[in-house]
Amino acid sequence: MNLLTDLPDARHGEVTETLVASPGLRIERIISLGQASPPGFWYDQDAAEWVLLLAGAALLRFEDEPEPRHLAPGDQVLIAPYRRHRIEWTDPAAPTVWLAVFYA
Amino acid sequence: MNLLTDLPDARHGEVTETLVASPGLRIERIISLGQASPPGFWYDQDAAEWVLLLAGAALLRFEDEPEPRHLAPGDQVLIAPYRRHRIEWTDPAAPTVWLAVFYA
Repeated sequence: MNLLTDLPDARHGEVTETLVASPGLRIERIISLGQASPPGFWYDQDAAEWVLLLAGAALLRFEDEPEPRHLAPGDQVLIAPYRRHRIEWTDPAAPTVWLAVFYA
Repeated sequence: MNLLTDLPDARHGEVTETLVASPGLRIERIISLGQASPPGFWYDQDAAEWVLLLAGAALLRFEDEPEPRHLAPGDQVLIAPYRRHRIEWTDPAAPTVWLAVFYA
């Protein structure tokens, strides 16, 4: 399986696939196509999350930062447990491919 | 830090950087530029390794497979502990960027 080709259709919702699952570790590929977090929603996770944007474009907002971060392919972000964050925007014109590594 | 831009110069040797280090988990970016494993050398690791090629081209050989696998950007491989493998070739003309996730 190649993570960048033959992408599933995410027009009607983000598509999440687990690539690796092991005690204390989960690696996911997430495909977005214009989705954003609902208004007022914040992720608030007990796991640490390391994110790498593989393709597309997104705006990631942390509650403790005034402006969202613009993510381009190759950009990585480490999200500490319980650091509240949300996806403000993903490109509606082309798939955004995320790699997310959750760990204890 | 963007993993695909402003790459360090790997002409004189592979460049490995640790992106995340946590108990039981290590995420590395490795940049190759024409390097290969020495003749007769096999990696034989006690950690599981999940590899994603982010850029470039490489040939990954498993001892238990007759032919090397050609890796292109987006290709992922899960390498079980103690499954002997080696890098037969990386593109000498442009950097190959690997993401490697080692876990217990």
